[in-house]
Amino acid sequence: MPKKVAAFGEVMMRLQVPGYELLTQADTLKYSFSGTGVNIVSALARFGHAGYLVTTLPANPLGDAAVAYLRKLGVAQDFIRRDGKYVGLYFLENGFGARPSRVTYTNRLESSFNTAPAGAYDWEALAEGLDAVHFCGITLAMNDTVRGHMAELARAVKRKGGLVVFDCNYRPTLWGEDGYAKAKPHYIEMLSLADLVFMNEKDAIHILGMETSRTVRRDQLTDLIPAVADTYGIAAIAGTHRAIIGDGTHALQGFLYENRQFAFSKTLTFAVYDRIGAGDAYASGILHGALTGMPSGRTVEFAAAAAMLAHTVQGDTPMSTEAEIFRAMTEAAGDIER
Amino acid sequence: MPKKVAAFGEVMMRLQVPGYELLTQADTLKYSFSGTGVNIVSALARFGHAGYLVTTLPANPLGDAAVAYLRKLGVAQDFIRRDGKYVGLYFLENGFGARPSRVTYTNRLESSFNTAPAGAYDWEALAEGLDAVHFCGITLAMNDTVRGHMAELARAVKRKGGLVVFDCNYRPTLWGEDGYAKAKPHYIEMLSLADLVFMNEKDAIHILGMETSRTVRRDQLTDLIPAVADTYGIAAIAGTHRAIIGDGTHALQGFLYENRQFAFSKTLTFAVYDRIGAGDAYASGILHGALTGMPSGRTVEFAAAAAMLAHTVQGDTPMSTEAEIFRAMTEAAGDIER
Amino acid sequence: MPKKVAAFGEVMMRLQVPGYELLTQADTLKYSFSGTGVNIVSALARFGHAGYLVTTLPANPLGDAAVAYLRKLGVAQDFIRRDGKYVGLYFLENGFGARPSRVTYTNRLESSFNTAPAGAYDWEALAEGLDAVHFCGITLAMNDTVRGHMAELARAVKRKGGLVVFDCNYRPTLWGEDGYAKAKPHYIEMLSLADLVFMNEKDAIHILGMETSRTVRRDQLTDLIPAVADTYGIAAIAGTHRAIIGDGTHALQGFLYENRQFAFSKTLTFAVYDRIGAGDAYASGILHGALTGMPSGRTVEFAAAAAMLAHTVQGDTPMSTEAEIFRAMTEAAGDIER
Amino acid sequence: MPKKVAAFGEVMMRLQVPGYELLTQADTLKYSFSGTGVNIVSALARFGHAGYLVTTLPANPLGDAAVAYLRKLGVAQDFIRRDGKYVGLYFLENGFGARPSRVTYTNRLESSFNTAPAGAYDWEALAEGLDAVHFCGITLAMNDTVRGHMAELARAVKRKGGLVVFDCNYRPTLWGEDGYAKAKPHYIEMLSLADLVFMNEKDAIHILGMETSRTVRRDQLTDLIPAVADTYGIAAIAGTHRAIIGDGTHALQGFLYENRQFAFSKTLTFAVYDRIGAGDAYASGILHGALTGMPSGRTVEFAAAAAMLAHTVQGDTPMSTEAEIFRAMTEAAGDIER
Amino acid sequence: MPKKVAAFGEVMMRLQVPGYELLTQADTLKYSFSGTGVNIVSALARFGHAGYLVTTLPANPLGDAAVAYLRKLGVAQDFIRRDGKYVGLYFLENGFGARPSRVTYTNRLESSFNTAPAGAYDWEALAEGLDAVHFCGITLAMNDTVRGHMAELARAVKRKGGLVVFDCNYRPTLWGEDGYAKAKPHYIEMLSLADLVFMNEKDAIHILGMETSRTVRRDQLTDLIPAVADTYGIAAIAGTHRAIIGDGTHALQGFLYENRQFAFSKTLTFAVYDRIGAGDAYASGILHGALTGMPSGRTVEFAAAAAMLAHTVQGDTPMSTEAEIFRAMTEAAGDIER
Amino acid sequence: MPKKVAAFGEVMMRLQVPGYELLTQADTLKYSFSGTGVNIVSALARFGHAGYLVTTLPANPLGDAAVAYLRKLGVAQDFIRRDGKYVGLYFLENGFGARPSRVTYTNRLESSFNTAPAGAYDWEALAEGLDAVHFCGITLAMNDTVRGHMAELARAVKRKGGLVVFDCNYRPTLWGEDGYAKAKPHYIEMLSLADLVFMNEKDAIHILGMETSRTVRRDQLTDLIPAVADTYGIAAIAGTHRAIIGDGTHALQGFLYENRQFAFSKTLTFAVYDRIGAGDAYASGILHGALTGMPSGRTVEFAAAAAMLAHTVQGDTPMSTEAEIFRAMTEAAGDIER
Repeated sequence: MPKKVAAFGEVMMRLQVPGYELLTQADTLKYSFSGTGVNIVSALARFGHAGYLVTTLPANPLGDAAVAYLRKLGVAQDFIRRDGKYVGLYFLENGFGARPSRVTYTNRLESSFNTAPAGAYDWEALAEGLDAVHFCGITLAMNDTVRGHMAELARAVKRKGGLVVFDCNYRPTLWGEDGYAKAKPHYIEMLSLADLVFMNEKDAIHILGMETSRTVRRDQLTDLIPAVADTYGIAAIAGTHRAIIGDGTHALQGFLYENRQFAFSKTLTFAVYDRIGAGDAYASGILHGALTGMPSGRTVEFAAAAAMLAHTVQGDTPMSTEAEIFRAMTEAAGDIER
Repeated sequence: MPKKVAAFGEVMMRLQVPGYELLTQADTLKYSFSGTGVNIVSALARFGHAGYLVTTLPANPLGDAAVAYLRKLGVAQDFIRRDGKYVGLYFLENGFGARPSRVTYTNRLESSFNTAPAGAYDWEALAEGLDAVHFCGITLAMNDTVRGHMAELARAVKRKGGLVVFDCNYRPTLWGEDGYAKAKPHYIEMLSLADLVFMNEKDAIHILGMETSRTVRRDQLTDLIPAVADTYGIAAIAGTHRAIIGDGTHALQGFLYENRQFAFSKTLTFAVYDRIGAGDAYASGILHGALTGMPSGRTVEFAAAAAMLAHTVQGDTPMSTEAEIFRAMTEAAGDIER
Repeated sequence: MPKKVAAFGEVMMRLQVPGYELLTQADTLKYSFSGTGVNIVSALARFGHAGYLVTTLPANPLGDAAVAYLRKLGVAQDFIRRDGKYVGLYFLENGFGARPSRVTYTNRLESSFNTAPAGAYDWEALAEGLDAVHFCGITLAMNDTVRGHMAELARAVKRKGGLVVFDCNYRPTLWGEDGYAKAKPHYIEMLSLADLVFMNEKDAIHILGMETSRTVRRDQLTDLIPAVADTYGIAAIAGTHRAIIGDGTHALQGFLYENRQFAFSKTLTFAVYDRIGAGDAYASGILHGALTGMPSGRTVEFAAAAAMLAHTVQGDTPMSTEAEIFRAMTEAAGDIER
Repeated sequence: MPKKVAAFGEVMMRLQVPGYELLTQADTLKYSFSGTGVNIVSALARFGHAGYLVTTLPANPLGDAAVAYLRKLGVAQDFIRRDGKYVGLYFLENGFGARPSRVTYTNRLESSFNTAPAGAYDWEALAEGLDAVHFCGITLAMNDTVRGHMAELARAVKRKGGLVVFDCNYRPTLWGEDGYAKAKPHYIEMLSLADLVFMNEKDAIHILGMETSRTVRRDQLTDLIPAVADTYGIAAIAGTHRAIIGDGTHALQGFLYENRQFAFSKTLTFAVYDRIGAGDAYASGILHGALTGMPSGRTVEFAAAAAMLAHTVQGDTPMSTEAEIFRAMTEAAGDIER
Repeated sequence: MPKKVAAFGEVMMRLQVPGYELLTQADTLKYSFSGTGVNIVSALARFGHAGYLVTTLPANPLGDAAVAYLRKLGVAQDFIRRDGKYVGLYFLENGFGARPSRVTYTNRLESSFNTAPAGAYDWEALAEGLDAVHFCGITLAMNDTVRGHMAELARAVKRKGGLVVFDCNYRPTLWGEDGYAKAKPHYIEMLSLADLVFMNEKDAIHILGMETSRTVRRDQLTDLIPAVADTYGIAAIAGTHRAIIGDGTHALQGFLYENRQFAFSKTLTFAVYDRIGAGDAYASGILHGALTGMPSGRTVEFAAAAAMLAHTVQGDTPMSTEAEIFRAMTEAAGDIER
Repeated sequence: MPKKVAAFGEVMMRLQVPGYELLTQADTLKYSFSGTGVNIVSALARFGHAGYLVTTLPANPLGDAAVAYLRKLGVAQDFIRRDGKYVGLYFLENGFGARPSRVTYTNRLESSFNTAPAGAYDWEALAEGLDAVHFCGITLAMNDTVRGHMAELARAVKRKGGLVVFDCNYRPTLWGEDGYAKAKPHYIEMLSLADLVFMNEKDAIHILGMETSRTVRRDQLTDLIPAVADTYGIAAIAGTHRAIIGDGTHALQGFLYENRQFAFSKTLTFAVYDRIGAGDAYASGILHGALTGMPSGRTVEFAAAAAMLAHTVQGDTPMSTEAEIFRAMTEAAGDIER
């Protein structure tokens, strides 16, 4: 049976230079709208669930374009407020080989989402009948009002028996100097509320200040993640290890720790077309496994395959159906489908 | 002999939906960089003068793209500071016939230009050897620090014997409620400093609160403009009357009041391709006349033809040479040039 | 209070040569999805109603693209069946001046919509709570099964107290030789079921075989339309008269006959950017007036302005909000909105 | 019965800035291949004749692209030599309203066509079975070798009974200073060989140095053209008078003088999309009339309608069929064809 | 001496999403026209032969565009009938890495080609002077009338001494359930008529139901192909083995069995840009070898190199000249040619 | 302290087919302006120096576009003459995998640059205060007048104490048959004037006719380069060895011989996006090292990294800053920068 899932998060406009030109060379941009929450709930909608975004967008042509774009992605509009004045936006210049991609943000702190005042959302109505709600560490970096929204919504959903999901997603540039110290109390608050958390050993070490004597990544992971789960009472923790193999080729392995056991996916190696948003595809895969009662091992393979396919698709937002992911779990790279 | 002219103003990124689609329909944007100051000094550079922009842009890929674009336009870079974090930007959806064009701004108050602190610019160095400096009412609407910059630079140039030019360019949405009342003292300050002002009778009535018993626009103009010149000690005042004749066809007449006399251009009627920035083309034409000692009548015809041609060119920024404007002053619409 | 409106109709893929090239000259096409039903319910959704499309689309990438496009337009998906194999499509080459636009259809008779078998739709569920349902003469030309669907749905809605709307939309090429004779019985069946009909005097003369001694179009209209309403028991009849004034300029006047009285809109003259679908904008305007209880005179002005704006927008589907149409009813062609 | 027609002329690459940007603003160009000869024989091929181009193109990727493009237009390849090194090319910036279009040529004198040596073509083979051959004054301006080719081919065709057609097409920039004096002997040679000539009274006055006391264009025409026909023994002379009515609107009237009588077409007024090559459409219309035995009056109306339609089509080369031209002769601007 | 070769087959419109977007993401398509027959005869035309296509296309703008496109490719038009109403078309979404390409067909059974009635073509005229005729298993899957055309044309060519070529090209989706059983008698009929056949061991096993005790592909091939040749009296059989090495890299080896001996090409490994149509490039290479009397070993290397280059070119249709293929047979990947 | 560097060389228009189509397939081109001199001085400008181009461009729209493009690149305009009639141009078709890129030139010998007469430039003014001047072997191939310009400018700079830089850049197609013999005296003249030369052992062997008993490239290099330096009195010689590893992957090692010692960079292996102009990036890196007093080892690593990055950027002209090159010298291929 399809579930009802919401994500709380900002919608950003992505303005991408086509091909491999720089902003100083080109004169056109391709635009779309995305955000961690958008990516999660539209992926879940594609898997057959009802996906709601909880956000605020301005009542102007940019807001209209964002809302139409979200509708196209299958995101339910019921909890999208129209208020405030701005949409946050970022510019993307594609890297090539030895030249990395570059992302340039405009000022998002004045956006409709980040200026929505306390009391703007009706948490009780929202939480009613929700199976799960998703939050992200990017949102946590914004300001106190936004953090207040997050905690209130998480508590409301918890009260009504829904699953609280939190993706650590720590972005150094958003927290600035002494970022880990500033971020820690806010992360602890969210971890304490969450049932399912996305993170890996680096978050434990850097944000939570945990220590391990191990030096190999995998050992650090199996050492620290159970400790995090115990400390904050988290039912399940999932994440990935990514390695950049060479120009345009990445390797990725997913893990899922639940019921005091780790499940690991195969390490997938694949060509990368658009890397942004692939982490959200992984998270939506884990969440889909959780919502539909897949066993841990299958869930983590499903999520890893979902992440792999998200690297092959234009834009931040995963576009694969459940059937396509199942096929990618079993097949090698194929010839044309006709 | 070519003159040295500066303009103080913000550089904005213009993001235009190609053709006649709406932002909700399209997925690409064409971008360029402009602003009143950009338009004025690049037009003057095209007329053979040295055109300097006094502004601040961030040291990031958007700032780099803006600077490269300005270089292409022929704008001298010597007084462009690289500091702060953001570039203001606006989205343009082209209207068609009965459907008007729409402009949507993002938050420009946090831009590099609008957050440059007092003391950021070296006014003395800047004013040295300048023949003229141009200011605009859009800039005046930003904040007190920016207004402080304007007054300081105007005074520095005045001290060194340069011409101070001010274009009233009142934009209601920037001043908000009770805008005229808020704006009046700031406008009076700039008018008192200026030698050449761009405005028409509406500015006199609405911003300055002047009254006239006349009901016909032309009569109001000839009634009020001399009074403004007298009150604020302004040597020359110029402006235009525009009428929208029909879908895509405008009529425009320019005037120039100097030495207590009005000169009027012919009323030009023409097809409009890109209306934005045409007012700046007019201003640059008047300024070119002033800098090169054209008689009033020729100056106003030159400026009106420059404005007409600017309506036929893509983008905010006038692209016509002096020779092309002279030809447009004498010729009817022609066949192919080959 | 927003109403619940459905339209029964095919979704077609529109493949348009960009600019003014011919299919033999170009190598790219711009695509979108439309259809009379799509246009009507998305326009009503933009006016704040809930708009449902009743149709069938294949479960393949083309069907997926169509459904995503409809979602973007705001069309509710609840009554879209996914079945069959094909989407009908048409190619559009834009005319210019003396050279007319050309539309080339592919075979639509094998489309998912036109091959949906009797019994495919659940009419009772569909009709439940509907305020109105819209049908179109293009659909009526398809085949007997489709005509059967139309009659069943019309009767179901009628039974439950909803409004039955029928747009005659006679297309000669679809009915072939002796088309009027073939079409007449089917049109009579729909007219007998309908509460609101879109047609003009030409339909009365050619399809219904009615006669008038009048020679002026307006006189023929006022002579024949009341007779049609009486004969078939139709509460309201609306339509337009269009004149092509010159290259790219049309004139349009709307009428609405209800309560035995005619209301006529002003004759609007305007520049045309994309003519396809403008008739559907008119119909959606009339329907909006009917659903919200506007007086006849205001309804017909609203519908005519909606049609005018639809000519200024890219694509078949009207994109204007109620506010934009109200503004167009009062304003002349304006300068930039900023 | 279809005829066999050849044209002798250069193929040029047209590089057009899309839309209305200048070369300094844009970064893409749209390219095609054209030339008076190309336009004439492809138009005749579209009318059902066999159209051969006599030219030389290099055996490199540009030559390959040109040949493929000509094939697409329906031009027969049998007399296209592949030799030499270069293709002449020109850049086109579209004008808008008061701003004229601009054409910039690269050096065409080194092109394969203009460097083909004497003896390169097999005139006898070429002339065999030809119904007509077309030459153009642009080609005449190139160099002595090219003029030698023209005269030899014209004589060969004349010997075998084919029609020799010459379009004066005087281009001032190609002949340079004292151009008329330089050109005169070469024009006289071609006029003496020609059976059908395209020109008007201006050519008679400027190139041939003829005089008239009349001041009205039409009177000058009827005064001078018969004199030209008599002097040089020309069976038929045709041409047009064009007036630029306003932004993007031209008026055109065609004439045909044969059997000592003038036939004039209606004056057609129409919107202009792409003006280049419209004169060639007129010429191909006259030639089609001549080849198929149309009466003078019908021929001149056909040619004028062909020219009008050529203004509505992208590119230099006429794209209309005989049926489309016949329809344009009878119909007003129409609604969509579907 | 150049040969005269015909292919019998359908022309389809290919509508490709540019770049790597899905149909649900993009809004433009790039179109071209292709088909096995088109690919074969245009490749042979590029090798210097006269290539004729035997097909039917509608007399509408789509048919016109197809014919112009074929002309551009160098395909001779003499045997292209213009009749019927539709052109079959397919949509192509490019895969990337782990995500396969997707092809979606529209209904081709109603196309002009597939509805051309018995007696539509003049086989005797067509077969006259033909050196070879090419057929394809895709065409064989259409309907009985089409299969009738194939057999009649094959017999006519055989009677006049031309070579009959048949490419098995079995497409499972076209034959549906129990496809092999349905297809077998039709394949046997074509094999019995053919002199040169394209197939490999899989066709022998699946379509013809042959058996082999070998398990390695190469062994199965050398076991079964001679048996096929003997059973059906086929002079020569050729084909390829393809392996997908990794994302975007394929390996391909060609074979040619004639005079009771196998020749194998080197195994070529190469980057793939556009995989569609590469099999036709291989076939055209073999056919060119046969028509010009190359030894088996050289023929199969030539064909493999032709196939490799076809993977590097946009579109279905091979674009390489004989010289380019010869160079690719000897050279490693090179630097820029200038 | 920033240095003042000039380059003497032609500006060419680059017309590139987008993507991987051939000129016969596409219909659009992307254009830019480049040349060895442009590449060198714009790279140096990006490194913070003042970069002047010494060239001649026509006073027409193509020349205007070139000049605007150079301004955008940061090239100083003071020594750009506007005279003559033509801009040289070349067409670029991108290769893919086994299919090489193709460059087709138009006639550049008639360009403004190549027809600038003796005496056109003011060498004394130009050489005043110059730290270095750059010449290239491509320019040397043009004609005697151009070679005269080169020698005069080199001597003027030498007299005033500036560094003379010469890049051998031998292009076989420009020198034609017996090219090495024709070229040798001109190369010897430039080598005798130069302080810093770009070349490798192949130039020594082929152009200068030197001999070595070594067979390994590296040994030939270390054998011959010191001999060249001694013979012609050259202070420093630099160059690269390039190997094509596979489809789209190159390896490159740089060397710098100065003070009788060789420094070699690491061998860099990298994915190639746009190979044209990468040699100029290497040269500008060496020159930057020389101008800022970097040690040989660091200079050669900097230059190799600059060359590597230039392969990842669209267009001929290097776009990397000093900071980006320093980062590329230390980092592996990275994830997104945000």
